[in-house]
This record gives sequence, structure tokens and C-alpha cells, in this order.
Amino acid sequence: MGLKDCLWCIGGASKGVSGCRFSLYPMADNFVDIILGGLEKTDTSKVWKQTDKLSTCVRGKSTHVFDVVKGLFVNAYKENVHMALEATFSKGCPGDTDADSFMEVDDEKVNEKNIKDKKFNVVSKISFYPMGEEDYMEHIAKAVMTAKDKGVFAKSSHYVSILEGDVHDVFGVLEEIFQYGEANLSHYILQVTISVNSPTKD
Amino acid sequence: MGLKDCLWCIGGASKGVSGCRFSLYPMADNFVDIILGGLEKTDTSKVWKQTDKLSTCVRGKSTHVFDVVKGLFVNAYKENVHMALEATFSKGCPGDTDADSFMEVDDEKVNEKNIKDKKFNVVSKISFYPMGEEDYMEHIAKAVMTAKDKGVFAKSSHYVSILEGDVHDVFGVLEEIFQYGEANLSHYILQVTISVNSPTKD
Repeated sequence: MGLKDCLWCIGGASKGVSGCRFSLYPMADNFVDIILGGLEKTDTSKVWKQTDKLSTCVRGKSTHVFDVVKGLFVNAYKENVHMALEATFSKGCPGDTDADSFMEVDDEKVNEKNIKDKKFNVVSKISFYPMGEEDYMEHIAKAVMTAKDKGVFAKSSHYVSILEGDVHDVFGVLEEIFQYGEANLSHYILQVTISVNSPTKD
Repeated sequence: MGLKDCLWCIGGASKGVSGCRFSLYPMADNFVDIILGGLEKTDTSKVWKQTDKLSTCVRGKSTHVFDVVKGLFVNAYKENVHMALEATFSKGCPGDTDADSFMEVDDEKVNEKNIKDKKFNVVSKISFYPMGEEDYMEHIAKAVMTAKDKGVFAKSSHYVSILEGDVHDVFGVLEEIFQYGEANLSHYILQVTISVNSPTKD
């Protein structure tokens, strides 16, 4: 049975909406202030956005989804606070709909100009899940190659690849892997953790 | 091309090792004490375990993987601390190996007896990823049905299912979904967030 025949494909999104569900975890008593402070500085006008108890979901063009998630993370960054971002980037779920999208905007990123000069290092782990593909391991290998080519691949570990580098370089690789999915896959998920200022030694 | 023919299957694990990579995020200045305090009360003698800057990975029989992750979460719980667990449960990756496993143990859970009387409510989001399967959406539907049957399904949202309920009921459903994978799938991932004491209203 092909994807196109399955019950779930009824109502699949036709507009190519990308999305990310993410949580920001500042390990500090004032975590609410840190999150709201980051959000205040971040322009979310080019995505659909909804927050619940667990996470925030943004949807729209992939370029803006990445711009907003990166913007919020960089804007919330504090030099002395251990903070982690957990983010699930996704596109093409057969159960998805055109609802809650935000596709009628131009392609100009609205946050990048305000965050591009803020530099700090991050460690990240990523897993790439191409769905419904027998040769999914080959697509995963392409994602790992992208990280290696860009110089942020640190090592493979059980269930993940570890990336290390400047926050801009790491987010650049994430977006490039997502764009690979847009060009080559029907449904895929990029699961990401990005951490700063961990007290744990390697 | 079937999975068995692919380059990546060389070295695939033969012992059926399950694993989980997880991070505990207490949103408090004393997050290190909370994590270490939880760990101190948790018996990890029946799994392989390794911690790095980003996360902890445990591997072994699935029953012990769940026992340890649940044990650590319950042992670390504090009534007044907002805390989240992010966990990736996985089994069957064709690139996996028999290394770092821990299969020569009996099936008796070692933490359950110490945590079974500690009750509190959690909210959780889960995503189930059956890999290399054209009819993966049908397997996902089975996972959602399991949560509904056990009374912890709250709603579907973009990219996730939301669960709510007693911590023991929610972990029970997670383990049951994982066991469904063990019986019916070759490679699958269960991505989970469990949160307590969030200050965010619905």
C-alpha cells in the first residue's frame, strides 16, 4: 500500500507547511523571565504560533520557522545560565492539514539581522527520521554528511549525532538538513537538542 | 531495496538491545542537586549507562530501560519544581551494534518497588516513529489507541499526541507502546516529553 492510498492521507496538507514544536528549558529559578524575555525580543509575525503547558508550536514557511526558533534561543541566551532547547522540526505528515499555517508571507527572515552578531558555542544532538522510506538510512547518512561538510560534526553516539560549534553554524546545518528533506522526502522529522553552559564535563 | 540488503545492516544488533537517551531538566538554580539526588536513589545496575554534556544513555532489556528512566524521574520529582524529562526510546536501528548492551540479567524491575507509592500527575507529549515501513501511519494509530484505551489520551496536536494522568499510568502506556514495537516493527523510536508543575495555564 502506498502512502497515497492510505486512510490518513485524506486531508494531508497541500500548502507545504513546515512546523516546529519546541521547548526552552533554562535551568534557573527565573526560567519564566528568561523565556518571556527571549520571546519579547523575537518577531513571530511571519509564523502561526501556539503555546501550551508543554511546548510552543510554530508553523509556516520553513525559512521563518527556523528564523523564529533560532531567534528565540539566541535572544534567551544568558552567559551564566545552563539552558537547553528541545525542538521537533517536521514536514509532510499525511495527517497534517492546511489549518494553522501561515504561508502568505515573503521569504525575508525578520529575526536574523538582530541576532547575527551574538556569538556563542553550543553542543547539539540531532536525529533525522525520514518516514515511509525503505532506504531511510541513506537519507540519514546524507544529513550526517551535511554536518561533516560544514565542520560542526563532533561524533556519532547511540541514537544521535553530536554537533558542536558556533550557534549560527549549527542552526545553519539544521536548516540545510531540513531543506534536503523538502527536496527529497515526503514526510520527515528532525529532532534536535541544543544546549549551552552545561556544567557536565565531557 | 529491503532493509536486509542495505549497507547499514552490517553490524546491526543481534541481541535485541533497547535503549533510551534522555535529559532531565529541573527549572531551578539547584538543578544539579535535583538530578544527582534522583540518580542516587535509582538503581541502574541492570542497564548499561553513559552520561555526556547533553544527555544520559541507558541500554539493555526494555523492561529495565523503562524502570530506570521512570525511577530517575520519580525520584527526582519535587512538589514545587517545574521539571521536564525529554526521552528518546529506540530499538532496532540497522546501524546499532551489540556493544554497550546489558542483556545477561533477569527481568525483575529493581526500581518499581521503591517508587510505586509516589503519586503525582504529569502532562506528556509523545511521537511514535516506525522506520522503513510504508504503512507507518497505521502503527502510529495503534500507539494512539493504546493511550486512549488506558484513559490517558488528552488530545492530538500538531506533530504529537498529548497525554495526561498519573505518572504510573503514563509510563505504563509508554512501555506498552514500546512493547507493541518490539512485537511488530524492526526499527522504531518513541519520542517523549513528560512535564510536571508547569506554571503555564492551558
